[in-house]
Amino acid sequence: MSVGDTGESVDRSRSVGEVGERRLIAELTRAAVALDSAGSPPDIVIGSGDDAAVIDTAGPTVISTDTAVQDRHFRFDWSDARTVGARAVVQSAADIAAMGGRVTGTVVSIGCPPSTTVGTVLDLNAGIVEATHRLGGRVLGGDLVAAEQVVLTVTTIGALDGAEPIVVGGARPGDVLAVTGGALGASAAGLALLLDAEARGADDLLTEYPDLVRAHRLPDPDLTQGAAAARAGAHAMTDISDGLVEELITMAAASGVQLAVASDLIPAGPDMRAAADRLGADDREWAVAGGEDHELLAAFPDGAVPTGWTRIGEVCEGNGVLVDGRPVEVQGWQSFDS
Amino acid sequence: MSVGDTGESVDRSRSVGEVGERRLIAELTRAAVALDSAGSPPDIVIGSGDDAAVIDTAGPTVISTDTAVQDRHFRFDWSDARTVGARAVVQSAADIAAMGGRVTGTVVSIGCPPSTTVGTVLDLNAGIVEATHRLGGRVLGGDLVAAEQVVLTVTTIGALDGAEPIVVGGARPGDVLAVTGGALGASAAGLALLLDAEARGADDLLTEYPDLVRAHRLPDPDLTQGAAAARAGAHAMTDISDGLVEELITMAAASGVQLAVASDLIPAGPDMRAAADRLGADDREWAVAGGEDHELLAAFPDGAVPTGWTRIGEVCEGNGVLVDGRPVEVQGWQSFDS
Repeated sequence: MSVGDTGESVDRSRSVGEVGERRLIAELTRAAVALDSAGSPPDIVIGSGDDAAVIDTAGPTVISTDTAVQDRHFRFDWSDARTVGARAVVQSAADIAAMGGRVTGTVVSIGCPPSTTVGTVLDLNAGIVEATHRLGGRVLGGDLVAAEQVVLTVTTIGALDGAEPIVVGGARPGDVLAVTGGALGASAAGLALLLDAEARGADDLLTEYPDLVRAHRLPDPDLTQGAAAARAGAHAMTDISDGLVEELITMAAASGVQLAVASDLIPAGPDMRAAADRLGADDREWAVAGGEDHELLAAFPDGAVPTGWTRIGEVCEGNGVLVDGRPVEVQGWQSFDS
Repeated sequence: MSVGDTGESVDRSRSVGEVGERRLIAELTRAAVALDSAGSPPDIVIGSGDDAAVIDTAGPTVISTDTAVQDRHFRFDWSDARTVGARAVVQSAADIAAMGGRVTGTVVSIGCPPSTTVGTVLDLNAGIVEATHRLGGRVLGGDLVAAEQVVLTVTTIGALDGAEPIVVGGARPGDVLAVTGGALGASAAGLALLLDAEARGADDLLTEYPDLVRAHRLPDPDLTQGAAAARAGAHAMTDISDGLVEELITMAAASGVQLAVASDLIPAGPDMRAAADRLGADDREWAVAGGEDHELLAAFPDGAVPTGWTRIGEVCEGNGVLVDGRPVEVQGWQSFDS
């Protein structure tokens, strides 16, 4: 991204194609920098708007990238653009937390059809900037390109603040398994409610279970628990993007251990059982296999589980995953599933 | 990106949708890591394959992101997938060089239709990994998602190795303007040849001017000149992505100065005049306004222009850009142009 004109406020109802990439990039940069000056920016040497940004945080840099595609990962008839932008940041930042890192910045690519309104792009950007700030970071740059659908790629960088990075493959027999969050599967429950509302053409259940719908639209994990887990001496960690069982399978394989969890220990929201009954669904299935909560799963030495985590099982000699004593092999959600 | 199965070699002719995201991500990671072990990886604490990578380079981190979209920024009937992948890296890495940085790593998002062959994705990835290595960096992670067209987002990080970052807005009256590369506009010339060949249904000129076509398919700027310019005390720098004049306008505005260049000082390849004659085109127009060479433009104190740079003009009091003494206002290539 290069420096463009300084840009005056642009008409939200015009299309991106009409206004042009250069003018709009200048506007997006202005919005990011305006919010930066509201707080004390963390060690930014050169912020958004030059060829590249420069950030100076002590120690190693943690980095991960994640892409959200319209009608694959989000729908504009289900979420407003601000929420879509914020969700893309949470999804990317969760990978930094999963290493024990603290978010320091994001860079963002927005692809969209030329017919997209300027308002939609400004709202996507606002959601991205606000979510990055809530996590303690700053938007350090971006790109805006024409594409056939909205495609958001958020790359997040973070700092370890002296802690060792926590890999997914470090679980040891005798460790305790724990997760963050009050309701694993809430995002899957919200998705089921949205699909049901669409199928029936009625949104009564969306009104009845707003927290579950909100959990799907914008998961809100406490990602500071990643660094807390690193300080507490976690042996292994990952974020729950593809569903708990899928992440357990990954952690077990990478660690060369067996992971055993008890489904009734998995934190569940009070609404999940009720919503499942109304939909004829299984709330345990949501909790065990539902993805996109972006809460954290970690293996701790016994006695080291920090506040804010719920113990769900333990690490044993062997291999594979046991849920309630039975071996499981579940394939989580994949973008290419038809 | 999470750790997936270790993956055996997959059938290149199958589709991405058939093979599935998880298996293919494992394969892409394997390819990146296999090449890593060939050289000594620069300060990688955790490489590709975990939730996030961790890299430990001393000093500030330079970061920029760039997206290339099928049929907007590249065409598979003009470039093979390996070249497309490599080009996306060069385009992103040029922004790091433009700050005076040295490339340390990339993270990559590949979006593609489920019908894309595995071979195409493996080749895109190979181009990305090889180009990152050529620049001295390592691929640190990625994402693979379903999208309606191929969309590549490359985020590059770099190190300054003790140098101060060079902004675009630091040019001072009395400075000398210089550029890297032997032929500015070669990419534009190659594009014109490809468009001509398509229009005429004949590729005779593509065969006659292979270097120009190659310059469009895969620009090969010497990006180490970015760090060299920083060491030489450059006051301002940017990469030439949108055409020389467009970058001059940006640098003049950001620096609050006037920039004056002489078009006959701009380095031109021997083939450009001949190809322009054959096409009835203007090779000076390619040199002055043609984009996507990703060479570097910088303002140096007089006498400080390093080897490998060509002096093209000077920095004066005032504002705007003069080419051969005449004020210019040219709009460079934009992704949203129809």
